[in-house]
Order: sequence, then structure tokens, then C-alpha cells
Amino acid sequence: MDHTYAVILAGGGGTRLWPVSRRKQPKHILPLLGKATLFQSTVSRLEGLVEPGKILVVTASGQAGELNKQVPQVPEANFLNEPQPRGTAAAIGLAAWTLTRLDPQAVMLVLPSDHFIRNRDRFRQVMRLAVQVAGGGYLVTLGITPAFPSTGYGYIQHGEILPGNFETPVYRVLRFTEKPDEKKARVMLAGGDHTWNSGMFVWRAEAILTEIARQMPGLKAALDHLATAWGQPEQEAVFTSEWKQLKPETIDYGIMEKAGKVAVIPAGDLDWSDIGSWDVLFDVLSPDRDGNVVAGSGGHLPLETHNTLVFSIEKKLVVTVGVSDLLVIETGDALLVCHRDHAQQVRQVIEKLKEMGKEEYL
Amino acid sequence: MDHTYAVILAGGGGTRLWPVSRRKQPKHILPLLGKATLFQSTVSRLEGLVEPGKILVVTASGQAGELNKQVPQVPEANFLNEPQPRGTAAAIGLAAWTLTRLDPQAVMLVLPSDHFIRNRDRFRQVMRLAVQVAGGGYLVTLGITPAFPSTGYGYIQHGEILPGNFETPVYRVLRFTEKPDEKKARVMLAGGDHTWNSGMFVWRAEAILTEIARQMPGLKAALDHLATAWGQPEQEAVFTSEWKQLKPETIDYGIMEKAGKVAVIPAGDLDWSDIGSWDVLFDVLSPDRDGNVVAGSGGHLPLETHNTLVFSIEKKLVVTVGVSDLLVIETGDALLVCHRDHAQQVRQVIEKLKEMGKEEYL
Repeated sequence: MDHTYAVILAGGGGTRLWPVSRRKQPKHILPLLGKATLFQSTVSRLEGLVEPGKILVVTASGQAGELNKQVPQVPEANFLNEPQPRGTAAAIGLAAWTLTRLDPQAVMLVLPSDHFIRNRDRFRQVMRLAVQVAGGGYLVTLGITPAFPSTGYGYIQHGEILPGNFETPVYRVLRFTEKPDEKKARVMLAGGDHTWNSGMFVWRAEAILTEIARQMPGLKAALDHLATAWGQPEQEAVFTSEWKQLKPETIDYGIMEKAGKVAVIPAGDLDWSDIGSWDVLFDVLSPDRDGNVVAGSGGHLPLETHNTLVFSIEKKLVVTVGVSDLLVIETGDALLVCHRDHAQQVRQVIEKLKEMGKEEYL
Repeated sequence: MDHTYAVILAGGGGTRLWPVSRRKQPKHILPLLGKATLFQSTVSRLEGLVEPGKILVVTASGQAGELNKQVPQVPEANFLNEPQPRGTAAAIGLAAWTLTRLDPQAVMLVLPSDHFIRNRDRFRQVMRLAVQVAGGGYLVTLGITPAFPSTGYGYIQHGEILPGNFETPVYRVLRFTEKPDEKKARVMLAGGDHTWNSGMFVWRAEAILTEIARQMPGLKAALDHLATAWGQPEQEAVFTSEWKQLKPETIDYGIMEKAGKVAVIPAGDLDWSDIGSWDVLFDVLSPDRDGNVVAGSGGHLPLETHNTLVFSIEKKLVVTVGVSDLLVIETGDALLVCHRDHAQQVRQVIEKLKEMGKEEYL
């Protein structure tokens, strides 16, 4: 029996992809890059690696229906609906607890639903290797070769090479570093012994539960209470009240930084992107000779226009004249015109809209 | 009896105000600057100067109905519908010929329908003076004090002061200069004896018809043929075929440059703008402290945004982040994002759309 399972984290938002990504229509359920949504790509990437019946999806209640429609091959029962999002640690804890009840030997691939990976063969290869390493009790992280001194990713410092007969080298993790400032990022890049933390992890479900018990007793207690109530009439009430009390926490900060046996596999030539903000689409889609990128279903007529992204979800003609380095994002009720260098600031738009009470645009 | 009439030229297009101004919805019939359309403002500006029954509107067939709805005080019979536009010379010739049949002593104020004039008192004052000067057989032009070396306007060189008991000085015109290059514009501005040609004229209808007979025999012949057919069953057919044969010509080039008695009145403090392109709205509307201007009915949320115009005719939220000197013009089916310095190039968008056969956007 194959004990490999996938856990897709699909409860996130995507505020930097406003106005296309909304509270009720977050980025991973939208066809941002073509016909398939980011979520659908995350599932189809698992073909030949994990069978659909062994894919779990952790999502927010309210989203499961739409998500299941997008991947009907995944059984409805495999969607775990959190009453409210509590960070990746809680989502992963919930999935690990669910898996150990099904299969005590479960190994889980933890996959965010907003990644773009062009090289699917390498993805599957590296995942198989990770499963092998995880079998030895390691918490395995996937490291991405840094392309530039990014201040938007966490970094992983590699230690000694793990002994074992592995296809490509696997390293013990020396240290996790949260999103650094640019100076620190440059130093890490120059050192040559750091990769970006991709947010993809592989481990035995039991191994992560053991670390949760050790490092996050609050989450452990919540899962224990859930275990007692599961299948009982009070299940939903307990789930809601336990999740309400949880402090939101990421798996990186809550577990990984202080975990015992942690390994990193440099993912190599994955051709990977985290679709976190609009500027990433310049890397993922193919710019024309003027550096312009068109996405969505509308048209673009550029005159003296360079390095500009036009995204339109309506059948709309977007004309740009004499502009450079712009992101022009058009939806039915809102339009964003943003300098490419300010792509991260789109998050502030959301804050501003909240302040203004403009709920209809969130 | 008062022999003062107004002739409003309302047959134009407004390609540089695309995508709001369209073939079927040209700029003067749209509320670009507030609640009133440019055409309505042109009519209301005449209050106390010309009674509504003496306002003629020359327009394109198809537009008269909408225009009359906007100014119900002007009788339907006062709308002259050209079968096709043939430039300002033909439109003015048609109006002059119509007026002389009504009132051989008619003095006509010729007014484009796309001007913005804040100082209406000065407008009326200068128009009364112009009527007085026109009574002496002069073709009177209104000159605008140049604010900068514009290459978008024609220039008028002032000669000697006309003798007469006039409220403010009136000059004989020495020379008309078509839209100059910037070097030439700078020289004229430095000389201090040039004003911009506003396109507003005042003259006796008979005087302009005499000049038309002398300088534009083709137009004269067309008007004569029209006179024979007028009121007959063949009226429309003759109108259409005569207008079809006319070569499009402006009154400036066709008549004014070589006319005999031409005078110019410096209009002084009119606070005048020709609403010819989007960048003009920065002068006409009130920018906020960041230099941003909002027009239309949509909202604007600016973050680190400067000197940017947002115009939206739909109830739409436009968010701009980290941009400067942009024109963002939003309509139902098209969106224009244009650098402020490229406002004149919007005309090329129209050419491009024609080439592409995208008739639905014209």
C-alpha cells in the first residue's frame, strides 16, 4: 500500500492580487494564468504521484463547493473546512491528525495552492525523493535556488549533506531566516548555502504531530478536543470554538525553526513561482518584444508602451499610450493602475478599503 | 429689433477624448466637466446676450434630436442638419445663408460647442463689443492671450488699433498663422503682438457670404443650388449631393487668412479652454493637493499618486498606486491609460482602431 498523501492548503486570500482576488474569490480559485486555476494546476501536478482519493484539501468553509467543482476527481469527503483560517500550522495540524486516523503510516506532501511550477517532471522527481527522506523521520522542506536577493521569501541555510543513497543531495537544515532586509538577503545569496523556503513540505503525519505536541501545546490541545468530539453531535460546535481560541501561526515560525530533524532538498530546475503579486506574471507569462504581458480575456492595444501588464477579466479593450512599467488590472467594479515597483503595496489598498468601510470591494 | 444671432457649431467629433467621446456620442453632448454638457454650457452662456429663438445649431443629421433634448429652449427648426460634415467653412456658410433669408441685417456670433469659459461676464462683454465692431463690416475674431508657446492653436498677429469709441482696444489683423512648431510659437509669444485664434467669430452674415463668394466659389455655388431647391421636394437630395461634392475646409484657411477687413479683440480674462484633449481637464477642473483630478461618476482611491486624471463614466472604483502624470479614462467597453504628455496621441488610437476594423469602439 502506498502511504503517500497530498495536503493542499487552499484557504488563503491573496490581497496583493486585488482587485481580481477577493475575499469570496481568492486567487487560487481564479484562472489567473490561463484556462486552469492555480488550484486545478496544483491538483493536476500530482498526477502519477498521488492518486486523487489521497489528496486532502484544507480550505475555508464556503469555498469547498467551488473547489470541488474545479477538481471533481477529488472526493467531497477529502475537503477539510476550517471554521476560520488560523495560519498554516493549524491547517497542517488538522490535516495530519485526519491522516493519522486514516493511515498511521501516512506521509504527507504539504502544497500551497498558489504556486506555478513549469517543470512538472522535476517536481515529481523531487517529491519522490522527499518522501524517501521523510521516511527516515525528517521534516523535509523544498528549497528554491534564489534568483535574486528577494526580501519577500524566507531563507533556509544548508548544513551537512545527509548520509544515504539519494538521487540528488539532501542537506540538514542549519537555520531558517524570516523574510530578510535586502542587505541580509545579499549576504545570504553571496554565501551560496541558502535557498528560498518554498512553503512545500514533506513529512510523516505522525512526525509533525509529535513536533506540534512539543512546540505548540495549544494546537495539540485543540486537536485532542476535536478527537473527542469528532463524529458526535457537538463536532461542529467544538471545531468552531477550538479554532476561535487558536492563535494564528505559520508552520515555519511555529514548528520548523525549532524542530529537531529537518532536511532541505534543493529543488533545482523547477521553474517555480509563488503567484503572490501582480509583478510575478512578468516571469510566468511570456512578455512580447516590448516587454508587455496580456492576461485575462480582454484585449490590449499598446502604443509606445513597455514592460506593462494588462489583465482584464471582462471583454474589454485596454489601450495604453506612452507608459512603462505599469500593472493595469481591470475587473467589473474596480480598476487598479499600479507601478510595477509598487506591486507589494496593493496589500495597503485592502487596508485602506477596510478603513473606508468599502466592504463590497474586499 | 435686435439683429444678433448665435450660430453654434456642434457637428464635430473629438477623437482625442476617446474612449468617452465616440462617433455616436461626441464630446460636446457628454457631461465631461460636471452636470452640464459642453453644448449646454455653450447655450447657457448666451443668456442675456442672444435669445434662444435666435440661436442656430449646425450639427450632423442624427445628433439634432439629442441636442434639442439638451436645450429644449431652442426651437427645433433652429437645428440645421448637414448631410455630412464639410468643415467649419461650409457649416458657417450654411448658417449665414439661412440667417440672411430670415434677417438681411443679421449679425452672427460663431461659437464652437467644445469651449469652456469660466468668466461669463467677460464673455458677454466682449461679444457685445464684437457685435459693435462687426457692424462696421469687419470680420471679428476673438484672440486669447497665449499662456504658453502652444503648438496646438493657430495664432493671430495684431496690427494697428482700429479707430472708434470701443470699450477695450480692437486691432486690425495683420496675419493668421496656422498651428506653428514650438520654435515659431516661442518667437510669437515673445513678440507680445500675437493671440491664439479661439475659433470664435462675429460678423454680419452678409459680410461672410460676400467673402465666401469671393474666395470659395465652390461653396457659393452649393449655397446657390440649395437656394433654388429649398422648400421643394428635391431639397434633401440637392443638399446631400451638393455637400458630397464640397471639399472640407476650415473657415480660417478658406476665408480668414485672405479676407479684407479683419479685426481681432483680445478677449482678456475669459478663463477659456478648448476642451480638445484629456490633459486640458487639469486646467479646467480643480486638482487636489497632489495634483490629481477626478471627473465622471466613479470613485478614485489614490496611493502615492500625483498629477493624475481619473475619469470614469461608470460607478467604478479606480485605484492608482505609485504613479504620476497619467490619464486613466474608463468607460463600459474600453479603458485608456495614457501618459499626460501623450494626450495628443489619442487621435492615433482612433486611426489604429479603424485599421483594425474595430468599428464598435469608434
